[in-house]
Amino acid sequence: MAGSQKDEPLFDRVAIIGIGLIGSSIARAVRENSLARHIAIADASEAHRAQAQEFGLGESVHGDAAEAVRDADLVMLCVPLGANAAVAGHISAALKKGAIVSDVGSCKQAVIRDVAPHLPAGVHLVPGHPVAGTEHSGPKAGFAALFRNRWCILTPEAGTDATAVEKMKAFWGAFGSKVELMEPRHHDLVLAITSHVPHLIAYNIVGTADDLEAVTESEVIKYSAGGFRDFTRIAASDPTMWRDVFLNNKEAVLEMLGRFTEDLIALQRSIRWGEGEELFNLFTRTRTIRRAIIDAGQETAAPDFGRQSPDQGAEITDPAKPKAG
Amino acid sequence: MAGSQKDEPLFDRVAIIGIGLIGSSIARAVRENSLARHIAIADASEAHRAQAQEFGLGESVHGDAAEAVRDADLVMLCVPLGANAAVAGHISAALKKGAIVSDVGSCKQAVIRDVAPHLPAGVHLVPGHPVAGTEHSGPKAGFAALFRNRWCILTPEAGTDATAVEKMKAFWGAFGSKVELMEPRHHDLVLAITSHVPHLIAYNIVGTADDLEAVTESEVIKYSAGGFRDFTRIAASDPTMWRDVFLNNKEAVLEMLGRFTEDLIALQRSIRWGEGEELFNLFTRTRTIRRAIIDAGQETAAPDFGRQSPDQGAEITDPAKPKAG
Repeated sequence: MAGSQKDEPLFDRVAIIGIGLIGSSIARAVRENSLARHIAIADASEAHRAQAQEFGLGESVHGDAAEAVRDADLVMLCVPLGANAAVAGHISAALKKGAIVSDVGSCKQAVIRDVAPHLPAGVHLVPGHPVAGTEHSGPKAGFAALFRNRWCILTPEAGTDATAVEKMKAFWGAFGSKVELMEPRHHDLVLAITSHVPHLIAYNIVGTADDLEAVTESEVIKYSAGGFRDFTRIAASDPTMWRDVFLNNKEAVLEMLGRFTEDLIALQRSIRWGEGEELFNLFTRTRTIRRAIIDAGQETAAPDFGRQSPDQGAEITDPAKPKAG
Repeated sequence: MAGSQKDEPLFDRVAIIGIGLIGSSIARAVRENSLARHIAIADASEAHRAQAQEFGLGESVHGDAAEAVRDADLVMLCVPLGANAAVAGHISAALKKGAIVSDVGSCKQAVIRDVAPHLPAGVHLVPGHPVAGTEHSGPKAGFAALFRNRWCILTPEAGTDATAVEKMKAFWGAFGSKVELMEPRHHDLVLAITSHVPHLIAYNIVGTADDLEAVTESEVIKYSAGGFRDFTRIAASDPTMWRDVFLNNKEAVLEMLGRFTEDLIALQRSIRWGEGEELFNLFTRTRTIRRAIIDAGQETAAPDFGRQSPDQGAEITDPAKPKAG
């Protein structure tokens, strides 16, 4: 930021609308990096607002988003995608001229479609998507380091105020993220394969296993260490957020899902006809991708994700038997 | 073991055929728990034998499996499923009367089909499957605690010598495993959904992502933290082992895969027609399964598997750019 003082925070007032996992992580990271003089938090949930107060996540906590955004230089929308249009419409008149409106949604075309029409002239829309998260939800689940060593994708439309874009780059950079600019449409395609379809098939296999008659739920649980339990992590992600992702990135998800199913049917055929070489070749090729992800600093090299060892974990119990006590 | 001395090891000589991840973990656990006076190791790979010597995994290391099993009270087959028939035929004449032959294979009907016909009278077959593992392979990857807090499934046929079955229960119990007896056919069905199909769809999505034209490999790698990277772990498992699993549990895998695909197509239809409630209900139901797996001591409650934090990990790099230096 040419011309700004060394000790000057990046923003005077940052409003965070929605204080779940991502919103509360941003609040903590803004505080830790002294990026704002005032953090104003808004959330429709009274329980969330109480927690935001309890954890001291902001200087002010509001039930009405319009109050939070008044005089804000940066407004971060951290609500499920399906709530963006209503929130944008509601805060519209309270937005300060020159303010930046940004977000953290997993689909960028939908955000532009839902938010842009509500913004008055002189307010800059810089949509963003930090590719980071955990399967936990709510203000308590957030932590400032969530974005460290992760990518954040910004998808401003051509002609967006360059200073606003630079400020958002600096904002995410301060959290330890690397920032990339991308076309909204391309973003939605990339995330369909790296995030949306993986979540869908994880949700799906957990549902399939839950529906079986020949295998009991207790058996699924006991023998989940054979691979299944890995899928249950992302299948435990926030249901509202993920419903909205699939409803708002339909085209790209259906395209990638079609390819996934096509490949799976071919694999199924190889199993039926005993084509061992086909299987072996695929299984060898996939190993190299993981190596590349580890080399890029996006994954741990430790076996089994460096998962907490059973020694430190809970005692093994048989889910078929009622608990003692 | 009624009548045995307190300090008497469970077996005099244990032969381990195949010293990969599972075989070498067993060797280490046998040593740590003083379950045998002599551990005899056999492996067809010279490199594996050299590592077994280097790490002191056994008292003797053999290129010929028949030499290892001579005088052994327990023979553990720890080779890929496709090698069982040849190994069993080769060691047959060298087996001691009264010896137990067991294994660690992921499909139990195939093991009985391939091994039983080769065993002389008076040798007891007690097939077994420890539901444990990591994505790493080879003698170096093994560790004694691998089986702790995990289930081991034994699938002896009706009429198997009861003392032999009890000894195998004690063997796995000493490693910290809980032991369950199961019909081989039911085992293969349970593992198809808890292990085999999860591996197949993980391999498949990594393959699909690798084949895209519109999304670069570098983009897949960079944004893998959105969910994709979870799948790459099990898609990095040993290709030979997994080829053999799919070729040897065809019936159950095709049955479970059929259900998975059917459910996925229904989900795809819900996305196309914007049926948000269907999606939300499934996504809510799957959360409870993870909770049950955590409560059963089969998974960590820590967010993101308690994955190594980016702070301790490698520096973030852009896979599209060549490395410095």
